[in-house]
Amino acid sequence: MSESGGFTTMAGGRAEREAPHVGVGMLGYAFMGKAHSNAYKKIPYMMYPPPAVPDLTAICGRNEEAVAEAARRYGYKRYYTDWEQMLTDDEVEVFDNGAPNSAHMVPTIAAAQAGKHIFCEKPLGRSPEESKAMLDAAEKAGVKHMVGFNYRFLPAIRLARELIEKGKLGRVYHYRATYLQEWVLPHYHTPMTWRLEKDVAGCGALGDLGTHLIDLGRFLVGEIETVGAMTRIFTDQRPTADGSMAPVEIDDAFVATVGFANGAIGTLEATRFAAGRKNHEIVEVNGEHGSIVFDLERLNELKVYWVGQEPKETQGFADVMVSEPFHPWWSNWWPQGHMIGWEHGFIHELTHFLDCVVNDNPVGPYGATFEDGYRADCVSAAILDSARTKRHIDVTY
Amino acid sequence: MSESGGFTTMAGGRAEREAPHVGVGMLGYAFMGKAHSNAYKKIPYMMYPPPAVPDLTAICGRNEEAVAEAARRYGYKRYYTDWEQMLTDDEVEVFDNGAPNSAHMVPTIAAAQAGKHIFCEKPLGRSPEESKAMLDAAEKAGVKHMVGFNYRFLPAIRLARELIEKGKLGRVYHYRATYLQEWVLPHYHTPMTWRLEKDVAGCGALGDLGTHLIDLGRFLVGEIETVGAMTRIFTDQRPTADGSMAPVEIDDAFVATVGFANGAIGTLEATRFAAGRKNHEIVEVNGEHGSIVFDLERLNELKVYWVGQEPKETQGFADVMVSEPFHPWWSNWWPQGHMIGWEHGFIHELTHFLDCVVNDNPVGPYGATFEDGYRADCVSAAILDSARTKRHIDVTY
Amino acid sequence: MSESGGFTTMAGGRAEREAPHVGVGMLGYAFMGKAHSNAYKKIPYMMYPPPAVPDLTAICGRNEEAVAEAARRYGYKRYYTDWEQMLTDDEVEVFDNGAPNSAHMVPTIAAAQAGKHIFCEKPLGRSPEESKAMLDAAEKAGVKHMVGFNYRFLPAIRLARELIEKGKLGRVYHYRATYLQEWVLPHYHTPMTWRLEKDVAGCGALGDLGTHLIDLGRFLVGEIETVGAMTRIFTDQRPTADGSMAPVEIDDAFVATVGFANGAIGTLEATRFAAGRKNHEIVEVNGEHGSIVFDLERLNELKVYWVGQEPKETQGFADVMVSEPFHPWWSNWWPQGHMIGWEHGFIHELTHFLDCVVNDNPVGPYGATFEDGYRADCVSAAILDSARTKRHIDVTY
Amino acid sequence: MSESGGFTTMAGGRAEREAPHVGVGMLGYAFMGKAHSNAYKKIPYMMYPPPAVPDLTAICGRNEEAVAEAARRYGYKRYYTDWEQMLTDDEVEVFDNGAPNSAHMVPTIAAAQAGKHIFCEKPLGRSPEESKAMLDAAEKAGVKHMVGFNYRFLPAIRLARELIEKGKLGRVYHYRATYLQEWVLPHYHTPMTWRLEKDVAGCGALGDLGTHLIDLGRFLVGEIETVGAMTRIFTDQRPTADGSMAPVEIDDAFVATVGFANGAIGTLEATRFAAGRKNHEIVEVNGEHGSIVFDLERLNELKVYWVGQEPKETQGFADVMVSEPFHPWWSNWWPQGHMIGWEHGFIHELTHFLDCVVNDNPVGPYGATFEDGYRADCVSAAILDSARTKRHIDVTY
Repeated sequence: MSESGGFTTMAGGRAEREAPHVGVGMLGYAFMGKAHSNAYKKIPYMMYPPPAVPDLTAICGRNEEAVAEAARRYGYKRYYTDWEQMLTDDEVEVFDNGAPNSAHMVPTIAAAQAGKHIFCEKPLGRSPEESKAMLDAAEKAGVKHMVGFNYRFLPAIRLARELIEKGKLGRVYHYRATYLQEWVLPHYHTPMTWRLEKDVAGCGALGDLGTHLIDLGRFLVGEIETVGAMTRIFTDQRPTADGSMAPVEIDDAFVATVGFANGAIGTLEATRFAAGRKNHEIVEVNGEHGSIVFDLERLNELKVYWVGQEPKETQGFADVMVSEPFHPWWSNWWPQGHMIGWEHGFIHELTHFLDCVVNDNPVGPYGATFEDGYRADCVSAAILDSARTKRHIDVTY
Repeated sequence: MSESGGFTTMAGGRAEREAPHVGVGMLGYAFMGKAHSNAYKKIPYMMYPPPAVPDLTAICGRNEEAVAEAARRYGYKRYYTDWEQMLTDDEVEVFDNGAPNSAHMVPTIAAAQAGKHIFCEKPLGRSPEESKAMLDAAEKAGVKHMVGFNYRFLPAIRLARELIEKGKLGRVYHYRATYLQEWVLPHYHTPMTWRLEKDVAGCGALGDLGTHLIDLGRFLVGEIETVGAMTRIFTDQRPTADGSMAPVEIDDAFVATVGFANGAIGTLEATRFAAGRKNHEIVEVNGEHGSIVFDLERLNELKVYWVGQEPKETQGFADVMVSEPFHPWWSNWWPQGHMIGWEHGFIHELTHFLDCVVNDNPVGPYGATFEDGYRADCVSAAILDSARTKRHIDVTY
Repeated sequence: MSESGGFTTMAGGRAEREAPHVGVGMLGYAFMGKAHSNAYKKIPYMMYPPPAVPDLTAICGRNEEAVAEAARRYGYKRYYTDWEQMLTDDEVEVFDNGAPNSAHMVPTIAAAQAGKHIFCEKPLGRSPEESKAMLDAAEKAGVKHMVGFNYRFLPAIRLARELIEKGKLGRVYHYRATYLQEWVLPHYHTPMTWRLEKDVAGCGALGDLGTHLIDLGRFLVGEIETVGAMTRIFTDQRPTADGSMAPVEIDDAFVATVGFANGAIGTLEATRFAAGRKNHEIVEVNGEHGSIVFDLERLNELKVYWVGQEPKETQGFADVMVSEPFHPWWSNWWPQGHMIGWEHGFIHELTHFLDCVVNDNPVGPYGATFEDGYRADCVSAAILDSARTKRHIDVTY
Repeated sequence: MSESGGFTTMAGGRAEREAPHVGVGMLGYAFMGKAHSNAYKKIPYMMYPPPAVPDLTAICGRNEEAVAEAARRYGYKRYYTDWEQMLTDDEVEVFDNGAPNSAHMVPTIAAAQAGKHIFCEKPLGRSPEESKAMLDAAEKAGVKHMVGFNYRFLPAIRLARELIEKGKLGRVYHYRATYLQEWVLPHYHTPMTWRLEKDVAGCGALGDLGTHLIDLGRFLVGEIETVGAMTRIFTDQRPTADGSMAPVEIDDAFVATVGFANGAIGTLEATRFAAGRKNHEIVEVNGEHGSIVFDLERLNELKVYWVGQEPKETQGFADVMVSEPFHPWWSNWWPQGHMIGWEHGFIHELTHFLDCVVNDNPVGPYGATFEDGYRADCVSAAILDSARTKRHIDVTY
């Protein structure tokens, strides 16, 4: 062995083979902060060779003790308690916004104005107006922008997209999507939380879960033209810390019918009141030549049916294990059947974004741009509008 | 052995133990005629001891050769090619209407006026007006009336109803129902058929499949108050026998959102354009204390989740094999896990009807009366109205 | 309508189109008696046109009250309490032996000697010696003989056989078969029953359940050459009615490895001590070009994988709904996806037997002959021998 | 924000809160090297706070270019091409042996003699003799030793173990385990590879896959006392690079029956010839009070049945999503239903080992020690012995 060789290689050498580094400034250190940080840390050695090496430059949060702990935990070089200061940090080239929805717009626009490339979690804005402002700011600044519709970056979903894009399903007739979760909300006299406050959360099951269904519908089938919807607040008052009752103003659940520009129709539904459903996102597409079904809780699998498959005696939905070397991103992972998890979508997603940043590649159509984030918010707004006015609403973009 | 004993017993004896006989007159000898005839023939020895022994008195159809063949095949004593004549047959006590939708109303009303008890296939009428006329006629005549929502009589569905009725699910939040089939229609330049003609069929996927979802929603959750819907005719012209093109006027598919009187919301969808879906009816109910899922293609099973089930480490949806002696109707069948089929629903259903006829028991709430048939048709009409007017429609009954 | 026509047709006419009638004498009126009687009653109108019309001539059992009731229930013309007398009944042409295992050999041999065609439930004998005697007697008498391996007559199993027979799987490497049930035996201090008595039952899980696995292995893969096995009696004493303890002498469970003549290897397992497993028979075959999996509790389905299936991105086990008109026997039943049940296997099986009887067709290779029953018993005996001697045993036929 | 605070914290401070560091020397950089390296890199921030921080001190492999690349990729400080040299590296405290089976024994014994704690991949040795030597060396040196039976560290398997250990299943009757894969071997005239050479691989499907089943049997049910087995080499000659044919000497597949010391019986089977089976490891345990089923391809799920579960009408196998905060290791991961993957088992496993190293905790019974590795090899040897001698073999330890 060559001690010097080994060590030297690591410390100094072979710059020509090294990927460029990109400094990341992360806003938020909770659920999304954890998921994104994990992704950045894995990209250099699992998406190997990586298009870029993300440097964990800074992380930002309001609680100093907590953000310092997060910085130590994930290995960020420094932390900030004020995002405006972080945006002045020249080593921060990518601004990753994993903050609550109410902190999406203002920091994101400021980041664009500061010339940072931006990755922002979904839903992009709390309204189409917010999203449009973010989109305009990013476009004006000429920075890369991407919104965190991470399920586009699961191998099974990407495979579905590719099959549909290549015309394998022919004309699409149906899109059917549900996202069911079980929160403690239905079961107990759960107190009011910020997640149910309109100003902070901005939206309920629709924004949190439903936007995934909207984005996947647009990703797989095409533009949504018309919606008809109902929403429900099943418990309209909840106790607050001081014992008084506070009104719940955002949706516990919604159901919608949608018409696509290409003539397909669909159903969308999301709820936090589905007992026993942990993270139950099911997406089905039926076309002229076949059908595709995806289940997030079994995310390595895809069910696929082909019309005309021979021999006809054994036609049926195939349980496809999307884990072969020729499946999207799988050559980076393990042998077939050695399954990956939910967190892996973020790894693929942020790798794509880093590639766009350093190689000036377009984020779309496989990644979701702020345009996609805006359009998803337009559909959400139409859904709320339909529920309120009790009419079908043509989505305006 | 006792030859005389054996034989005598069969031929003559023990009248006191014999169930009453009821003469059945069957209209139609195709799909439903076959399913009903099979049920009548099995009731005497499988639903043992039966509440009544159905006598296969007569069968009626327009094509004499075919109806004569059906009579011979199933063992009907005689046949008719004119249903009006069959209604004059005094041995016919129950009129079973398994004819196409366009032949539901007139014969059924005539049967009521002739004092026959009536079992009619679904959808009851081609419109609420037709159904209402049938209901009124039957009520006026004081005869028993039942509409063929056979899925109420599958053990798993009946179990679901009993659990909900006893309050085991608590408040119901969601009803989610799809009925997907794959016809040859999407795949080829399939010619026009009577099933796509508005006058004969009266309705498409909505009437054929969707009414099952509507009825199960009413059976399991409660009255439907409001609907919002879209429909599609994916192929709006089809070639006829003479080579010209005929317009398709009935729905290939529909999607709907529904609001129940008790506050629950739901989605309904039916289509004949779902590649690979053979007879895919899925019904899910989510309530305060649990959830229930039914799949028609695995009709002996029910998935059930109970909130608070101990031990919590192993909580999950139970795959219930609805095949124990204490499950609905199972003591009549086989040991646990020895599955029954789709046709068995008709056996339970017609046994119930015969019991109502001979013992003057009420058909509802477990059986579907003409009132239920009418109400399902009101919801169907509201769905079509919503699709046309692009507004939510409050169902009027 | 033609009253006379209708009636006349039924009562007298068209002898030229009528199938021949075959008189059936049934021994046993419990589980198998019920399943067989149901099959005979359905054949004439569901396997239409039937190869023969079975006449329910006589049924025999030791308890006169019970057998009289069974005769009345199923419509047998007469009953006997002595099978020897039934065998003198000239109208009995087919002797159907659905009695307990201890009553298989003697009545069956006598029936052969009386010139009756014989259908006997499985396992054929309580030992290869018993089965051989039955086979010899039937062969000598020149009567048709069949043993009740009913799962051969489920559409999915027949489809599997046809695929393998045509070489679609290529060389077969593996056979994997389990039959798990849950009796009350493990859970409570269940008293001794005749099912656990060696003289009456003759065998335990091996004979009751394991013989199905052996027969399906022979049916699908080929002759079994060698076995290695272990058995267990988990509770070796049980209380009797008089309070004393009786030894349990037959197996609660067995596990075995098998070597096939064609080089394939396999595992067999059956138990009555598998909590939660209702009627869990799973059979899997892996070959050079594909794999097949069958699950008795979802008997309308077959999972099939083809090596080399295109497109490779969507290769996977297909969930085949074996319910198309081109699937075995399905043209007799319902539209696709309208599932049939466990009892339907008997209908197909006895139809085949009646066809063999009236048209002098061979029972094998699709039906199981007494030769097959004998060979299954030889494998069972080798399994018990292996468990006792702790050596692999070459099966001798 | 506090630039100094943020940066200082990361670079220097708070030693009192820092976990101890442990230097790791990794042998091998292929499949297992990748899986282990990934685990070491994730432990510090995902198993937070970690019991120890693994320093990636050195990695070793024979091909300098490849090992240098691996070192760069995963961030090892240096590399070696000679494991003996690596063992002289004082910063290496843990020796992680992820080399091929033929390189397990000698380096491991040397590592023990050098005072390194040792983690070695499975199977521990190519024979019980090899494993025993490794065990003895480690015991004599007083170092921590662990063998890579990683499936013990999947949450669902650990939950199963805890349930059984607490007596929730009562007496165990059955263990049923299969591990099926599909290699290209059966499908083509695949050339000879080192994986099929006895000297290098030491074993085939039995060693590679079967040892997992043996270990899980011992982990869940208890010691294995007796085995009976058959093995197969389906293709006994394969072409080599020079065009000649080489004999294949190791098993393509094995099937076995096993008897446990506690009276339970089981079946084991592993193969590389199961078309369509990607990584199909299924483990089922049936006990007096319940049953448990695990499927590696759906590793976040566990099917559990409890005898006596109320209400009895809805008893059934529960599909448990093992993803709640109270499930093993889940508090370190994501919200319920946000699934983890195959690689996560290694993270839990190596965290456990690091904890044992720095806190002097015992590796067993939850981790597999070299004693467990040795005992698994004893069972493997007995299986081969049984296949050769055609007798049941009592395992000697």
